[in-house]
Amino acid sequence: MALAPQTFDPKDFRRALGMFATGVTIVTAHAADGAPVGVTANSFNSVSISPPLVLWSLAKSARSLDSFTSAGHWNVHILAEDQVDMSNLFARAGEDKFSGLQLDPSPSQAPLLQACSARFQCRTMFQYEGGDHIIFVGEVIGYDRSERPPLLYVTGGYALAARKSEPVSTEPRADTGSALFSEDLLGYLLGRSHFQFVGGIRSTLNERGLSEADFFVLSLLSVQAPLSSSAIAGHVAYTAIDVGPVLLQALCDRGLLEQPQADSFALSVRGRDAILHVLAAAKAEEADVIDQLGEMEAAMLRNLLKRLISITDPGLPKLWTARTDS
Amino acid sequence: MALAPQTFDPKDFRRALGMFATGVTIVTAHAADGAPVGVTANSFNSVSISPPLVLWSLAKSARSLDSFTSAGHWNVHILAEDQVDMSNLFARAGEDKFSGLQLDPSPSQAPLLQACSARFQCRTMFQYEGGDHIIFVGEVIGYDRSERPPLLYVTGGYALAARKSEPVSTEPRADTGSALFSEDLLGYLLGRSHFQFVGGIRSTLNERGLSEADFFVLSLLSVQAPLSSSAIAGHVAYTAIDVGPVLLQALCDRGLLEQPQADSFALSVRGRDAILHVLAAAKAEEADVIDQLGEMEAAMLRNLLKRLISITDPGLPKLWTARTDS
Repeated sequence: MALAPQTFDPKDFRRALGMFATGVTIVTAHAADGAPVGVTANSFNSVSISPPLVLWSLAKSARSLDSFTSAGHWNVHILAEDQVDMSNLFARAGEDKFSGLQLDPSPSQAPLLQACSARFQCRTMFQYEGGDHIIFVGEVIGYDRSERPPLLYVTGGYALAARKSEPVSTEPRADTGSALFSEDLLGYLLGRSHFQFVGGIRSTLNERGLSEADFFVLSLLSVQAPLSSSAIAGHVAYTAIDVGPVLLQALCDRGLLEQPQADSFALSVRGRDAILHVLAAAKAEEADVIDQLGEMEAAMLRNLLKRLISITDPGLPKLWTARTDS
Repeated sequence: MALAPQTFDPKDFRRALGMFATGVTIVTAHAADGAPVGVTANSFNSVSISPPLVLWSLAKSARSLDSFTSAGHWNVHILAEDQVDMSNLFARAGEDKFSGLQLDPSPSQAPLLQACSARFQCRTMFQYEGGDHIIFVGEVIGYDRSERPPLLYVTGGYALAARKSEPVSTEPRADTGSALFSEDLLGYLLGRSHFQFVGGIRSTLNERGLSEADFFVLSLLSVQAPLSSSAIAGHVAYTAIDVGPVLLQALCDRGLLEQPQADSFALSVRGRDAILHVLAAAKAEEADVIDQLGEMEAAMLRNLLKRLISITDPGLPKLWTARTDS
């Protein structure tokens, strides 16, 4: 246990404080000259239910300090998990942070950002001394909430949360003597999840007479086309599903693919219709699963699968290309 | 946006506040009579680095209010993810919360609990008015930190955090016009995770001349045997991999399966050796993945996949049987 406050290493002290997880907020107000100001803060917290009070603190060294101490109103926005860019933007000094941002009308007169997990419109109640920070306590005069999973900050980085639960199993857990193969084996869980999920759209695939290999090819070409047969094989190779010229020719013969040039494949109108039909079924199944799993848990599952994919990536060709219109 | 503060529904207001994730702390002190007191609080936050200040708030209606307002010192414990029971214990009124608890010696004189993610020993600096709560601001006179993952509280329940991933494609996210098929589609992420994971053991399968279908059959029989051909097909049906009599006969001919009776299959010594070899490779790959993903993230991923499996379960026959020796 480190003692003697005067000598705390700020970096080490921050690391200890960082063990306390928080959400991430942006607090906004209008400066005396009417310009909008905003800062990213994770020092938010609820204080009182009746009267409804919340607090946050701002460094005395912050450029926007005067604006917040003189503004009678400010809005706190609890950021959603897809608002990292906005968090980073408002964490930087300077810049015109509000240019291009859509705002909602705000009874509190402070700028009101969109697409957050929750928002609180506040009137300053107290400003308290807090060392190198000022603690702002505000009365909440309006609030709203969405179903967007919140963004977190913990141990110095952005994070997501998922509800803690008891181990879930459809059957009692077995610890058989020799069993290397157990229901906790990640490979088993991934395979079973994948196959059961695909099982939910199998009837739709069958209706359209599509095999899983056909489905892979059509999905791929809905994102990138035209592609050569070797490019298609390269994208699909990791599945170990054989996509050879015979399969591609069969899809052409059935009118699902067309060949704009020799060895160049793209979806036909009929092929696009087929894949949109299957993908709509997959979307519907996904919506149904998320309904039972929870939005926050689904975001976390996607997050963890993406990390797993990047860890086990055998060097696949990129499927999605950069957006160029931003 | 709900307005008019006097009429907020407390439950709804709490739900909105609950979108802000927090850690969970226990704050302890000694009452005037020397008895230890402690409360669970998620209203903790850091305030200032220099001087080092933290704050938390306590309901004016709390039994222990007098103890905290008169104690000059208190300790804040950021709870680890396995301390839910302790969180619940200190959230209840009454009871001798400290009986049976091991305490560490504490320079601040307040009780110092063990096995937390971080601990802060504080001297009261300010006590501020906060509606139905008192805001305590303390100077940190000592602290320590462990590597234990912290417990979270969000949207009204305990939660765990995992670091947020980068996008899978390692390039900016694409929003193509029609794209129903995106890298956020759960089915895509499950499939790619599964195939890439299997890719890691494909060379081992190839070495042993095993197809994925062979692998499924041998794995299954390593858990349950002997099984009839229809029982085997029933277990594997969800994968849509065809396990017919021809495949089973081929495995018998290669000496990997034996038939204790007609239409009854079990692993031979050679079959058991083969499957143990492949499963050892899968275990090694899993250990490697978890090393990069993190233990906590791996536990969470397993948990979410199990929930997904139970949500999408088409009614598979049970694979593992209940443990009877516990």
